[in-house]
Amino acid sequence: MAKRIRFNAFSMNCAGHQSPGLWTHRDDRSAQYTDLEYWSELAQLLERGKFDSIFLADVLGAYDVYGGSPEHAFRQGLQIPVNDPLLVLPAMAQVTKHLGLAVTCSVIYEHPYSFARRMSTLDHLSKGRVGWNVVSSFLDSAARNFGMKQQIDHDRRYDVADEYMEVCYKLWEGSWESDAVVRDRKRKIFTEPHKVHGICHAGEHYNVPGFHLCEPSPQRTPVLFQAGASRRGREFAARHAECIFIGGPSKIHLKRFIDQVRERAAELGRNPSDILFLKAQSIVVAETEAEAKAKYRALREHVSYEGTLTLVSGWTGIDFARYRPEDELNYVQTNAGQGTLEYLTSGDSSKKWTLRNMADWLGVGGGSIVGSPEQVADSLQEWIEETGLDGFNLTYALAHDSFKDIVELVVPELQRRGVYRRDYERATLRENLFNQTAYLPDTHPGAAFRNLA
Amino acid sequence: MAKRIRFNAFSMNCAGHQSPGLWTHRDDRSAQYTDLEYWSELAQLLERGKFDSIFLADVLGAYDVYGGSPEHAFRQGLQIPVNDPLLVLPAMAQVTKHLGLAVTCSVIYEHPYSFARRMSTLDHLSKGRVGWNVVSSFLDSAARNFGMKQQIDHDRRYDVADEYMEVCYKLWEGSWESDAVVRDRKRKIFTEPHKVHGICHAGEHYNVPGFHLCEPSPQRTPVLFQAGASRRGREFAARHAECIFIGGPSKIHLKRFIDQVRERAAELGRNPSDILFLKAQSIVVAETEAEAKAKYRALREHVSYEGTLTLVSGWTGIDFARYRPEDELNYVQTNAGQGTLEYLTSGDSSKKWTLRNMADWLGVGGGSIVGSPEQVADSLQEWIEETGLDGFNLTYALAHDSFKDIVELVVPELQRRGVYRRDYERATLRENLFNQTAYLPDTHPGAAFRNLA
Repeated sequence: MAKRIRFNAFSMNCAGHQSPGLWTHRDDRSAQYTDLEYWSELAQLLERGKFDSIFLADVLGAYDVYGGSPEHAFRQGLQIPVNDPLLVLPAMAQVTKHLGLAVTCSVIYEHPYSFARRMSTLDHLSKGRVGWNVVSSFLDSAARNFGMKQQIDHDRRYDVADEYMEVCYKLWEGSWESDAVVRDRKRKIFTEPHKVHGICHAGEHYNVPGFHLCEPSPQRTPVLFQAGASRRGREFAARHAECIFIGGPSKIHLKRFIDQVRERAAELGRNPSDILFLKAQSIVVAETEAEAKAKYRALREHVSYEGTLTLVSGWTGIDFARYRPEDELNYVQTNAGQGTLEYLTSGDSSKKWTLRNMADWLGVGGGSIVGSPEQVADSLQEWIEETGLDGFNLTYALAHDSFKDIVELVVPELQRRGVYRRDYERATLRENLFNQTAYLPDTHPGAAFRNLA
Repeated sequence: MAKRIRFNAFSMNCAGHQSPGLWTHRDDRSAQYTDLEYWSELAQLLERGKFDSIFLADVLGAYDVYGGSPEHAFRQGLQIPVNDPLLVLPAMAQVTKHLGLAVTCSVIYEHPYSFARRMSTLDHLSKGRVGWNVVSSFLDSAARNFGMKQQIDHDRRYDVADEYMEVCYKLWEGSWESDAVVRDRKRKIFTEPHKVHGICHAGEHYNVPGFHLCEPSPQRTPVLFQAGASRRGREFAARHAECIFIGGPSKIHLKRFIDQVRERAAELGRNPSDILFLKAQSIVVAETEAEAKAKYRALREHVSYEGTLTLVSGWTGIDFARYRPEDELNYVQTNAGQGTLEYLTSGDSSKKWTLRNMADWLGVGGGSIVGSPEQVADSLQEWIEETGLDGFNLTYALAHDSFKDIVELVVPELQRRGVYRRDYERATLRENLFNQTAYLPDTHPGAAFRNLA
């Protein structure tokens, strides 16, 4: 039987997330990101398409590497202004029953004690549908506004992140026994005091002696998402992540990455199938191939070259304003003396990609698959079969038309092929993703903190 | 013309907020605080009653002073478990159009840069209906879990709070000019870069060089609530607050407090009428006096004596478990060697109040007014006329029956008397409260940071 395909919608609480310039298209609605209706309509649309989840990216600074200033980011509305992603989740939870709701939160800018409460609260309100994309942040512009001179060193951020996870696991998994809260009106006991435990965490970065503030939520630990592609990031993902977001244009590169992370997870005692891999993907689909191609051309006309490079400069730390559109990426990489472009060059140094090629490839949401529903379905299945992928993290070119097209054209085609769910199976996000319990599997490192008593 | 009366609903994201033991009553629903429906129904009920706002209290620790342990707090479900209050606001915003949404957030446990974004996001999503109750926290149990050995010293917390406010004002009021965001599809300009300004804040506790992450929200600065009763707290309130929550059983004490704060605000250059005073108040109302009294007696039977003292011990730092129910508060105050009981003893040392009297007075939501709609209205009007109060911060004994009774019985009576709104006047919370603009008045200290350019 062919492998089931999973869809996650990738968005952000701003105009112009991954498609620089597309907000100027007359059909794009992303400039309405400040309205609740924008989010509730999107959530309802995705649930109609039986998506596993929506996942909101986040930054706490501006993209100011390109040209040494945030000017282009401002002009293009490129991830700035950017509102808090957490706060649209409750509104989306209210108008849906099954859709998973995942959010990006950095371990650098909030203390784990209050953060753990935010996640538990969301998991309660959504009845067990919350995911957390763990990031350790990458923008110097963010670090400076939190009173630091610059980012903490990359690998050390992951050390902090490991301890952050441990504090959270202790609070979520170990602090409250399952039968601590009884709500017994007759005996006048809400919580049995001896079944709640202080976590007594005394570590290098955090001291948390007390108990969690929240009673156990349906999933306890939210479903853990991760997207780090560096060596240290991969190690972190192999240890903690349940869903991993990846990107890039090369199947060979992707397959190697997936195999490496699964292998490392097994070494750490985890079941490799307890990790799902979702590839960032843009889809431009129409009833016929010709229509889809025409649509794609029209979208391409709105892409901002500077906007695209502003994003890539932020991600890599390389100021692309210093290079010409016809310069090759291999040249930039050598010149900049660092390996962070591996993702974009596909780890394939024979491929001759210019800056212009990269901007085109990224601009319409990232490596668009363009075609009829059948063609798109063929292509998606090919990716799955050849790489070991489990599904796609779908970007939009136009909000919400891109997702509407996918829901109305691609999903039915995949359902006909028997590789996409016709309805949600279970209640919580983790159950729907893994068809197991709502809790972390026993082999996950977080499960080790269950019996603090 | 008689002065208009304002109603605010006082609640918290937990069972058993200010009425210890009442969750055991068969009609109480507060144990359902983890459900979205609990909050959306409450918001709709309050909007039907034309309340100005709902305001959610918060703590980030447990009440563990009474008996030296959190045992009683757990048993009574007394503000523990406690979920994050911010996250129910978007859900309430979604089902209402006018109700103000205020939330308690401590300046001690989150950096102002990310906090300012949370408030702006909520103000956007609610279209200008957000209020912020500024607190500097009071529980040692919270401080310890954020890695501190104990609370920062009381007065120093207010110094930190003053600088925190300054950072927020700069971000909210000064960073983005009103016409910075143009969303101009033709010119392909989302934001005019030269109209966004870094705030260049370099202070004793915070360094924030950059600009605010959010575009201006309808109110920019949320409506500022405050509840500190100490000398330093009063000074902070006179400087920053737009709505002040107060309590206590004595009209003389209340009037003195209100006069002092208004006078101090005037000295600071503010308009004294730009501050509203709302008294914490429980109302037990029924069609007739006899029915109301019977209802009150039935509620009283559910009050937990230990629960009440657990709260007061947390507020004051005095372990009331060391005293007997028949001990007088004056004796406790002398014995504990501190003045924090002034609020409860009404500042009237001739009044002989025992612990039992205090527990009774506080237990059913705090100093209940009991009677028919006419009697309740008389009493409310008397408080307003004799003290200079502007309205009431209404607690509940039973969720949501207490508010339902007020909406259905008290509000119509006040409307008949011409002292309560028949419909919302304007769009934003600040406009509805002050009948002026959506922004801070020019004489408010936050307005001084408007022209950072």
